[in-house]
Amino acid sequence: MFPALGSAEAGSTIQLRGRCRIASLASVVGPMEGRGPLGEFFDLVTEDDLLGQSSWEKAEREMLLQSIRIACQKADLTPDDAQMLLAGDLLNQLITSGYAARSLDVPYLGLYSACATFVESLFLGAVLVEGGFCERVICATSSHHNTAERQYRLPTEFAAQRPPEAQWTVTGAAAFLLCDGGPTQAADEVQARVMAATMGRVVDYSVSDTYDLGSAMAPAAADTLIRHLSNTGQDPEDFDLILTGDLGKLGSRLTRQLIQKSRGIKLSRGNCWDAGRLIYSSEQKVQAGGSGCACQPVTFAGYIWKMAKELDLQQVLLLGTGALHSPVACQQGESIPAVAHAVELHFAGVQAGEKPSIT
Amino acid sequence: MFPALGSAEAGSTIQLRGRCRIASLASVVGPMEGRGPLGEFFDLVTEDDLLGQSSWEKAEREMLLQSIRIACQKADLTPDDAQMLLAGDLLNQLITSGYAARSLDVPYLGLYSACATFVESLFLGAVLVEGGFCERVICATSSHHNTAERQYRLPTEFAAQRPPEAQWTVTGAAAFLLCDGGPTQAADEVQARVMAATMGRVVDYSVSDTYDLGSAMAPAAADTLIRHLSNTGQDPEDFDLILTGDLGKLGSRLTRQLIQKSRGIKLSRGNCWDAGRLIYSSEQKVQAGGSGCACQPVTFAGYIWKMAKELDLQQVLLLGTGALHSPVACQQGESIPAVAHAVELHFAGVQAGEKPSIT
Repeated sequence: MFPALGSAEAGSTIQLRGRCRIASLASVVGPMEGRGPLGEFFDLVTEDDLLGQSSWEKAEREMLLQSIRIACQKADLTPDDAQMLLAGDLLNQLITSGYAARSLDVPYLGLYSACATFVESLFLGAVLVEGGFCERVICATSSHHNTAERQYRLPTEFAAQRPPEAQWTVTGAAAFLLCDGGPTQAADEVQARVMAATMGRVVDYSVSDTYDLGSAMAPAAADTLIRHLSNTGQDPEDFDLILTGDLGKLGSRLTRQLIQKSRGIKLSRGNCWDAGRLIYSSEQKVQAGGSGCACQPVTFAGYIWKMAKELDLQQVLLLGTGALHSPVACQQGESIPAVAHAVELHFAGVQAGEKPSIT
Repeated sequence: MFPALGSAEAGSTIQLRGRCRIASLASVVGPMEGRGPLGEFFDLVTEDDLLGQSSWEKAEREMLLQSIRIACQKADLTPDDAQMLLAGDLLNQLITSGYAARSLDVPYLGLYSACATFVESLFLGAVLVEGGFCERVICATSSHHNTAERQYRLPTEFAAQRPPEAQWTVTGAAAFLLCDGGPTQAADEVQARVMAATMGRVVDYSVSDTYDLGSAMAPAAADTLIRHLSNTGQDPEDFDLILTGDLGKLGSRLTRQLIQKSRGIKLSRGNCWDAGRLIYSSEQKVQAGGSGCACQPVTFAGYIWKMAKELDLQQVLLLGTGALHSPVACQQGESIPAVAHAVELHFAGVQAGEKPSIT
């Protein structure tokens, strides 16, 4: 009934030559994420979830803009120095991204793969840089717990009880500045280059519970991960870290089971982490963990990037997972299709004195 | 108050080398579009706007799938022979594209620039092919009058009176298959290659009437067109055709005025057409003309492509125009931002005996 996971015919892995470098990253989160275990690693923790705006939608837009400005500042640039802004979010018509782009003088391309949008933007940004089409590209995504809940499920004021499989949409935004060119001046500075990417096909295992997006996304995550490993001839152990986006507790467990049962591949908890499980503590009552377009990129831009030396990261796979959940389609009796995109990053400068070896 | 139109700082024009060729195109439309002046040029005119489905949303999905299948059939391929599907539509979470992609074994990237989504997909598809990342890419977009009206304004069953500036969302879908490589076997076959692209920044002139999207889009259209002409050192007369997406009567007039007043550039009606004004006849009571993600691509894939020899088209600019209109944002007092993307195509084989000169 369901298509075989990881069939190699379903699109190949795209190899890049590492011309595209992550020049800088920024993470902005709300107060709840600031109180979580990764709180100290974020560039900006806002005092409240409104940021002085008249609506949560406007607050989310402000967060996205702040993350873009911080990422550019870190590289001594302004947003207008980029040739392209690739952005997306969870709100209908991508209003966070569209209205944020209005404040910038940068060509804007809207992208949508739900919570896998960040990895989609990283792939397309790398393609634009690697192919010589752009020198600098900004990739940016955001999500906000209160804007997402009222659009996808119930307004937060309604205070509906959340089942244990529900995930908590991260309030936050992240921006990555991608640049063309060689190593930065300081050889001991952490650097990362995009070396390969496997984009996901849409997989649907007939999950229709709009609270249980982890289960909806697990087959897509397994499919793309198997394809990436098989296409590149690698094992999970070849990666210092496989960071999934927001599978949460249940989705992570299902993904492990699907990969083991269908291909006999065992994922270790030592190098396979889920951003949705890292960002909140168990005391924060977020049920199965975090989710949202911001979950994976703020975790990466905050904790992972800043701890790259301590974690001795040389090779990292970012596996973004998105539930293409539509309230209208679900009301019409449809199930929730999902997609997962993978981008492989190679780090340099994580060991003291090491020279960047990727050219 | 408003930013200057066409400022060159706002992102450059990206030059391509013509490695990306449009290998085949397909257009599928509903009965009303079939009765319009371009009816005979479409590949498929459906009998009704439900296509035997239980909802208009499912019918739109079916149209998108049919257009993808027809485009691939014309090139003696199946959709699974492509390495990437770039698709988008007007519905929240891009459900037409997401659910259509579920039926295909092709990696899927969701894109959204409202009615400029088609040109966004053509640009990114060309970049993937030109950069050597993919051999074959499918670009596909769709819209449906009844699904769009009930999401953005009022259900069609409500039979609200439409003001004269309103536009009629085209029911249809179009798919383009982009391929890497040299000229096709037959030198007298019409061929087109992507040679340059100018992506749009988001422009907002404070239009907030959700029926008057032509006025909202006109400044964005003017901005991108001026930038493309200025960056490439061309005049409007250098193009055999400038095809705008769906400005309609009012938006087309405003765009002409904005370009003339701000830059003294005069657009001629002889080579500057709007797909929204071509697709319906004045008897069809569509007020200011057609609109929607399908409007420009079905007009191009149907009429323009099939008449390329008769029209002697050598150089064509596709200027997609999108109103990033959100009902929620407008209810919160926001205006409607817009974006316009331009892709320049060079044709070969339009004159009998001519050899393709683009290599």
